[in-house]
Amino acid sequence: MAKNKIKPRILPGFMELLPKEQILFNSMYDTIREVYESFGFLPLDTPVIELSEVLLAKAGGETEKQIYRFSKGDNDLSLRFDLTVPLARYVAQHSADLTFPFKRYQMSKVYRGERPQKGRFREFYQCDIDVIGNEELDLIYDAEMPAVIYNVFKRLDFGRFVIKINNRRILNGFFENLNLSDKIGDILRNIDKIEKIGKDAVIQELKEIGVEDNKTNEIIEFINIDGSSDEKLKSLKNMSVSNEKFTDGVNELESVIGYLRQFGVEEDCFEIDLKIARGLDYYTGTVYETVLRDYPGLGSVCSGGRYDNLTEYYTNRKLPGIGISIGLTRLFSQLISENIISAQSSSVVKVLVLPMDVDMGYTLKIADMLRKNNIPTDVYYSKKAMKQKMKYVDKLGVPFAVVIGEDEVNNNEATLKNMTSGAQITVKLDDLISEYKKQIGE
Amino acid sequence: MAKNKIKPRILPGFMELLPKEQILFNSMYDTIREVYESFGFLPLDTPVIELSEVLLAKAGGETEKQIYRFSKGDNDLSLRFDLTVPLARYVAQHSADLTFPFKRYQMSKVYRGERPQKGRFREFYQCDIDVIGNEELDLIYDAEMPAVIYNVFKRLDFGRFVIKINNRRILNGFFENLNLSDKIGDILRNIDKIEKIGKDAVIQELKEIGVEDNKTNEIIEFINIDGSSDEKLKSLKNMSVSNEKFTDGVNELESVIGYLRQFGVEEDCFEIDLKIARGLDYYTGTVYETVLRDYPGLGSVCSGGRYDNLTEYYTNRKLPGIGISIGLTRLFSQLISENIISAQSSSVVKVLVLPMDVDMGYTLKIADMLRKNNIPTDVYYSKKAMKQKMKYVDKLGVPFAVVIGEDEVNNNEATLKNMTSGAQITVKLDDLISEYKKQIGE
Repeated sequence: MAKNKIKPRILPGFMELLPKEQILFNSMYDTIREVYESFGFLPLDTPVIELSEVLLAKAGGETEKQIYRFSKGDNDLSLRFDLTVPLARYVAQHSADLTFPFKRYQMSKVYRGERPQKGRFREFYQCDIDVIGNEELDLIYDAEMPAVIYNVFKRLDFGRFVIKINNRRILNGFFENLNLSDKIGDILRNIDKIEKIGKDAVIQELKEIGVEDNKTNEIIEFINIDGSSDEKLKSLKNMSVSNEKFTDGVNELESVIGYLRQFGVEEDCFEIDLKIARGLDYYTGTVYETVLRDYPGLGSVCSGGRYDNLTEYYTNRKLPGIGISIGLTRLFSQLISENIISAQSSSVVKVLVLPMDVDMGYTLKIADMLRKNNIPTDVYYSKKAMKQKMKYVDKLGVPFAVVIGEDEVNNNEATLKNMTSGAQITVKLDDLISEYKKQIGE
Repeated sequence: MAKNKIKPRILPGFMELLPKEQILFNSMYDTIREVYESFGFLPLDTPVIELSEVLLAKAGGETEKQIYRFSKGDNDLSLRFDLTVPLARYVAQHSADLTFPFKRYQMSKVYRGERPQKGRFREFYQCDIDVIGNEELDLIYDAEMPAVIYNVFKRLDFGRFVIKINNRRILNGFFENLNLSDKIGDILRNIDKIEKIGKDAVIQELKEIGVEDNKTNEIIEFINIDGSSDEKLKSLKNMSVSNEKFTDGVNELESVIGYLRQFGVEEDCFEIDLKIARGLDYYTGTVYETVLRDYPGLGSVCSGGRYDNLTEYYTNRKLPGIGISIGLTRLFSQLISENIISAQSSSVVKVLVLPMDVDMGYTLKIADMLRKNNIPTDVYYSKKAMKQKMKYVDKLGVPFAVVIGEDEVNNNEATLKNMTSGAQITVKLDDLISEYKKQIGE
């Protein structure tokens, strides 16, 4: 029955990991989830496939081109391209059953049929938190978002980071005051690029947009306001911008900074950055970006902001919200390729039991005992020489081996080998768990 | 800017839960994952979208009709319909980088565009474990699979269950001996239905297939072999079936039962069931089904078996394996609708901090302290009356409230209220964690 074999492969732009990297990825995923839950965010799991009419209510332009869209039976279907639209649909659909403010997290895959290129994925995890208010939403949540992210990155522990904060009202008010409201979209998009393309290119582009030179100077001066957070707030307050939005924005920003400190966020881990606008249309207040200080080239690894009306395409209710998102697949792939993190172990177990040609019953009893004490344990069943078995344990990065020979069986004992130190000790079976716990310092 | 609103809704056949049920679902998911990892199964996360050529190498008939298949650019793509084909593709693709026996779990969504009906889903979680050997795979894994599942269902704790075990070699050998090898497919499919359609209907169908009466009796007698596992094994050994496959199958089954006991699986939780064939073509040895004893109507909640050659469509390597799978979405939905389980809490936190019109700094400091001690904590920021706040805590099912009034702030104290007993106690801030731990019995 000779058959043509099909070459096993996946579509470019999809991240698929070997177990070693998958274990590391999962540990990051679990950490983020744990921190999200520790702040009371509720889990959500929406379908990957939605009705196109519902999912694309708002979409258009670039987004729509990237959608995986198809028909099945009579249905026009699409794969979700983010987790915000499904959240809007969910909240509108289930609002009667939800308690507001509604805090939810969702950490799931989304799909964008982009041209594959380095660092861009067609399938990737987003790790979102959002809080949705009914009619109104307390400003303290604008500080809770970065406080959560601060705790996430502290726990993930890949070096110094800074959460950059701005307020769209400040930007909008400032440009209104310059009579540049009609150009605000173009100017904000332009300013957003200053770190990528440089100050001169920004000035040139502002000129092309039609901004007068004196205003360009004011704009550059404004976005370059320097100093500590408090100094920046002081400079903003001292500016001669007589615009209510601007003043509101500055006051909001000041309150958010104050709350952030009360949340215990270290001074070094946040800063006001007046250049941050976030491309998307719907942000209306506080906005965030997060940068790893030692790897600014990675760009923002976590962004978000406040929006006035989450569900406008589905209901007339006014549901303002604030959210922030970690693009985990992209972040992980960058951290790996920059050697900022690396996989330590190819195993999820703490102990590998190695029977030396002895009765399997005794071996399995020990494995069961270890698992019952919450110690993940595997057994190496294959009949190989002990040296080969030890090599295998080492290769996998399992921290402990339990060796069972004839003596151990006869004396009701087990030999615990610490693979890091190389030391081994033979103990009575009843003492195995306590010996293990001693060695791991519990 | 009046707009037509779009009705927020999802496609039928997709399970979407409210937070309360989602929390329960996740706790089941986490339990299964924890047990899988405790046995050393490695995590895998393959793409939801695969190339149709690769994914459908084997498929045909009913399966192919159910596929969500579509084009994007030049690519003919499909959504995965199970986790076994992606595993085969993965192992064939990455075999040089894997250590065999390769133990992996994957707990992910799969897609089938079925007609929606009760208990059938178009998007559902499968929780699979498989072990893949290189050229050969020790029989002990045939016992490890049900041992893992035993531990899963023990931990999930919804009552008595039994893992039914059979061996396809016994069935194949038995029918070979009756000269019914050419009808084996039809007969097995028929036997598999005996609990659904009854003995008489099976006999009738066997007649229609063309099985002679005397053989029909032998078949019915065979599948009705009764007694304990050891008695059934004895009956099988006493049968006058002179067929090598049959004898091999009985010996394998006997070994697997022996190992199962050594794995610590309770006698009450497994049994030999000679009727079990599993519909799929590729099972070649041990096969499993799992039934909740008090809810047999739910059917098999966890099934699987051994197969000879996982990757035959992709490589010439011989990679035998064994696997078992929990259909979590279907199981969860059945358990909920039969009231076997029910959601207990609408919250993921253990403590809700309730500030009574006091300085937010003190409140946030307490919340941070609780979280730093691994106690998930939320804060009720809204300015409502204390009675309303308490009602809210109660409604969510949060077990503890920490009340912060002016006295607490002035005396560096906090009031811990046990929502179950209603008792409350005011303690110094330094004693809050130990008081909490005392109350939860730690």
